[in-house]
Amino acid sequence: MSTDCLFCKIIAGDIPCTKVYEDDDVLVFMDIGPIIKGHALVIPKSHTETIHDTPAEVLGKLILTAQRVAGAQMNGLQADGVNIIQNNGEASGQLVPHLHVHVIPRFADDGHRWNWAAKEYTDPAEMQAYAEKISAKML
Amino acid sequence: MSTDCLFCKIIAGDIPCTKVYEDDDVLVFMDIGPIIKGHALVIPKSHTETIHDTPAEVLGKLILTAQRVAGAQMNGLQADGVNIIQNNGEASGQLVPHLHVHVIPRFADDGHRWNWAAKEYTDPAEMQAYAEKISAKML
Repeated sequence: MSTDCLFCKIIAGDIPCTKVYEDDDVLVFMDIGPIIKGHALVIPKSHTETIHDTPAEVLGKLILTAQRVAGAQMNGLQADGVNIIQNNGEASGQLVPHLHVHVIPRFADDGHRWNWAAKEYTDPAEMQAYAEKISAKML
Repeated sequence: MSTDCLFCKIIAGDIPCTKVYEDDDVLVFMDIGPIIKGHALVIPKSHTETIHDTPAEVLGKLILTAQRVAGAQMNGLQADGVNIIQNNGEASGQLVPHLHVHVIPRFADDGHRWNWAAKEYTDPAEMQAYAEKISAKML
């Protein structure tokens, strides 16, 4: 627990939330600023900031919980699809520095479009250079 | 393997890719239309379409591989953050119906902004009603 953390306070019950699911390891609750209504957050009860500092067993539990929430959005809300998004660091758009997974129900007619502005590499060698820089640091 | 699947053909080597990492279970390669240069895709070698039909052990392997790629983007590209995105179904923006995880390096000055258009619930009762519909279908 981090004493200054909004999500740790929600886990502790000091700040209210609209709960979807809870067990010993994770809490699922509604995002109060939904991209699409039904948008839920899956968080670990143990405080970590990003995926980088989170143990494997916690990540495994999070993705399986996200899978269950996604299925429940399909079945319970008759969603047509689901976005699962996990942002790390301010530069990525992460606002609360407690690891969280967004599970967002999507509907064919919901009108939302991500700004999926795909760019291009100058040439294949540039793409290859990026791949090699990443590959070299894969632990 | 699904014979009509673009990503299965990439796994089989019938269509080329710029590879970052490969093992018995997963393949990591560069997205040719990057949101930000260095954008990689993590895919399971076993064909499933979405998170809904994917076994737990495959999901666990995918998220741990995404963690490794994200760390390598931070260390190898000096990224400031990382978006991890997994889309399910056409309504979500999924283009290739073979499960894939986008791992996108982000930089403080990269200029990209997702269309994070947060909406509002009419009142707490509406949010509670959504939570209950999801909760009721959590398997």
